[in-house]
Amino acid sequence: MFKAEVYISRRNRLRSMLGSGVVIFPGNGESPMNYPANGYHFRQDSSFLYFFGLDMPDLVGFMDLDEGMDLIFGNDVEIDDIIWMGPQPSMQELAQKAGIQHTAPLQNVQEVVGQALSTGRPIHFLPPYRAESKMFLGRLLGLIPDRVREHASRELVKAVIRLRSKKDRFEIDELEKAAAIGYRMHTAAMRMAREGITEREIAGHIEGIALSHGAGSVSFPIILTRNGQTLHNHDHSNTLRKGDLLLVDCGAESELHYASDNTRTLPVGGTFSPKQRDIYQIVVDAVDKATSMVRPGIAYREVHLAVAGVITSGLKELGLMKGNVSDAVINGAHAMFFPHGLGHMMGLDVHDMEDLGENNVGYDDETRRSTQFGTAYLRLGKKLEEGYVLTNEPGIYFIPALIEQWRREGTNKDFIDFSKLESYITFGGIRLEDDLLVTGDGCRLIGERIPIYPGEVEEFMKGTTSV
Amino acid sequence: MFKAEVYISRRNRLRSMLGSGVVIFPGNGESPMNYPANGYHFRQDSSFLYFFGLDMPDLVGFMDLDEGMDLIFGNDVEIDDIIWMGPQPSMQELAQKAGIQHTAPLQNVQEVVGQALSTGRPIHFLPPYRAESKMFLGRLLGLIPDRVREHASRELVKAVIRLRSKKDRFEIDELEKAAAIGYRMHTAAMRMAREGITEREIAGHIEGIALSHGAGSVSFPIILTRNGQTLHNHDHSNTLRKGDLLLVDCGAESELHYASDNTRTLPVGGTFSPKQRDIYQIVVDAVDKATSMVRPGIAYREVHLAVAGVITSGLKELGLMKGNVSDAVINGAHAMFFPHGLGHMMGLDVHDMEDLGENNVGYDDETRRSTQFGTAYLRLGKKLEEGYVLTNEPGIYFIPALIEQWRREGTNKDFIDFSKLESYITFGGIRLEDDLLVTGDGCRLIGERIPIYPGEVEEFMKGTTSV
Repeated sequence: MFKAEVYISRRNRLRSMLGSGVVIFPGNGESPMNYPANGYHFRQDSSFLYFFGLDMPDLVGFMDLDEGMDLIFGNDVEIDDIIWMGPQPSMQELAQKAGIQHTAPLQNVQEVVGQALSTGRPIHFLPPYRAESKMFLGRLLGLIPDRVREHASRELVKAVIRLRSKKDRFEIDELEKAAAIGYRMHTAAMRMAREGITEREIAGHIEGIALSHGAGSVSFPIILTRNGQTLHNHDHSNTLRKGDLLLVDCGAESELHYASDNTRTLPVGGTFSPKQRDIYQIVVDAVDKATSMVRPGIAYREVHLAVAGVITSGLKELGLMKGNVSDAVINGAHAMFFPHGLGHMMGLDVHDMEDLGENNVGYDDETRRSTQFGTAYLRLGKKLEEGYVLTNEPGIYFIPALIEQWRREGTNKDFIDFSKLESYITFGGIRLEDDLLVTGDGCRLIGERIPIYPGEVEEFMKGTTSV
Repeated sequence: MFKAEVYISRRNRLRSMLGSGVVIFPGNGESPMNYPANGYHFRQDSSFLYFFGLDMPDLVGFMDLDEGMDLIFGNDVEIDDIIWMGPQPSMQELAQKAGIQHTAPLQNVQEVVGQALSTGRPIHFLPPYRAESKMFLGRLLGLIPDRVREHASRELVKAVIRLRSKKDRFEIDELEKAAAIGYRMHTAAMRMAREGITEREIAGHIEGIALSHGAGSVSFPIILTRNGQTLHNHDHSNTLRKGDLLLVDCGAESELHYASDNTRTLPVGGTFSPKQRDIYQIVVDAVDKATSMVRPGIAYREVHLAVAGVITSGLKELGLMKGNVSDAVINGAHAMFFPHGLGHMMGLDVHDMEDLGENNVGYDDETRRSTQFGTAYLRLGKKLEEGYVLTNEPGIYFIPALIEQWRREGTNKDFIDFSKLESYITFGGIRLEDDLLVTGDGCRLIGERIPIYPGEVEEFMKGTTSV
């Protein structure tokens, strides 16, 4: 599973992109739930995984750019630890798996970094996102924990994003494995989505599937709700009723912690009502439109706006929107129904490298982030390149609070027929999401496609028995 | 579900135990996995839950002891939040559920606490265990985050432990609910424990059961391993083989976050070998011995040592130990086989209040913690009182590294027959664990007893089909 050369080559490429100084990659520690010794599932830092591969707490990766020397700080276990944790490989053995010759006890990091500090060498580190890492770097560098992020290395951030954005075959393999677990989660939800069951029962069962395979973790907290109009809904307390739409947005991690992320919206009871099917079909058309456009060189914002056009046309046919489609999209009228972005990068993180700054990952000098409501939420706007992996996740939602606000304020009233909307106020929301790999001349799906066309979904839900 | 009077009465009792000043209870925030917005399952701080009951991030509970005023700091949601999170109750509505009249925006906490600071009033808070809370209190009180714990209030710690140690009916109800979920987890594992399945598949499935019910969480990371001799084994990578012992130590949280914690050790394939059954029977006898002794007024260390005697007698009968049983226990010879404590308090935390200091919870002036290997790991040693809830979890393990160390060093060689041990070196480990409530004149089990007697376990595993 470990391929030392992969990690050596990644570090060498990183080294070639940076100037002089040292680089510190603090791995993650255990994260306590309700007292220090009661931890959540351990999750290693993604950049640490990318460059060092070791999936255990309390390690620090270190690169001396001038000496060309890589080192891992971490402690060997003692006899007392063996009673509680079992026999463990030595630090030396672990480091060799990552192609590293040098190891040192964790407490030595202070001395080594102190030396670099005292000679004024540049010290590169990524912006920490866990309080524990902020405190660690604060102690190490003599900084106030709250201000550590300000000292993160822009040069390092840029280089890491450049490397991690383009997925190699090794990574695509892992993404496929994560997708296979995600497929099982989604089809299990399809089998369970019937009247009388609670959201929590389905969510718990499908998270159990993620826990049973790969790294044993979901890639993000499961969204599974009959209130799909709430975009990041983590409430699972409702009981499903016939006629509900159940929105399921979930994914798993492969053994090496690569993510999957798919969304399906299911008719509880197994059949879409004609009204649901009309809206659903627009969202399927939107997904397929995006897939048909994704290729190297196209800006993802262009794809996002084309999808907004598909949604606007579809809603216009149903009489919910009106006027000229292009003008509606330019004015952001679609965003009342589709208030989020078309997608984001995906890799070791489900929102890949979001800790390094959304705009650093998804935008550049050529493509600046929009400030218009809706498009402003698009996480990835810039031109695509071969090897990028991204999500394609349009949706149509009827959000009562937002509809009421726009109606009251007359926002985009030339493009929206608010009177027609009244019968949709309890409709809920539909989102569909596939994961795409940008290839040399277009794109392809990551993983087998989870049933998505309305007939296909109904067929699947009919043909299978409940678990 | 919320009973405002319960929370009011708990705060009033706390107030009556403290002197003057103010008390700050920082609730927990979201805990990031791999970037700020990608959080683990939210887990509220247990003392916050006990006194304020509100189960959501970014709240601060506040008590003015002199004015008799309680307050919750937290922010109401904005329209943008409603799009992502759905409609939410107001802070005012939330506070009323906890019987609190006063609320204020989160940023006001600085001003209110600053006022108390500037007038030199005592400021009480519990020792924080999350880095985020250390940083929060550091900012609030002008302290270095690493040193905040030193300023925690011993008076508050003592009072909280006194209150939380004795469970009221409301809490016992919740513990029973947690136990019912734990029962389902354990019996599911019994149905699945067959040759060829991986530990991870069973662990994932039974965690899925915890996620499907109650608070939707395990009470601690599941231990599920064919290497039960490793006490805190969180590796789940093995495939089960016929003849293995599978140790399963797991529990769930009830809706209000009360814990369950049970252990069973199962024969993969459904039948114990005679050798396994011999050791297993000693552990069952040890559990039953403890249950027969637990009552108000007895020190749990006395129960622990009596159990050590049962284990020593049993192993002596098998020829693995020798000499006088009492002398063996006094010398800690049993601890090579039973190197941990008999149990710990359980409540809102599986190791209840461990964040407040194990010795503060489990020991007092009358009963000081032992320093002898084995008994030193006993988390609860002091005299029991009615209303305590505790675990009863003896075990016998054959830990190769420990056996080798004792053999080499001749430790307790008068009580252990090292030559006989050779055929047990790959035996593994057995632990059994029930949860007990101390009643007026003895104790009773929390929850329905999970099959435990060897015949019962074999019958259960035989009689049921795999999932």
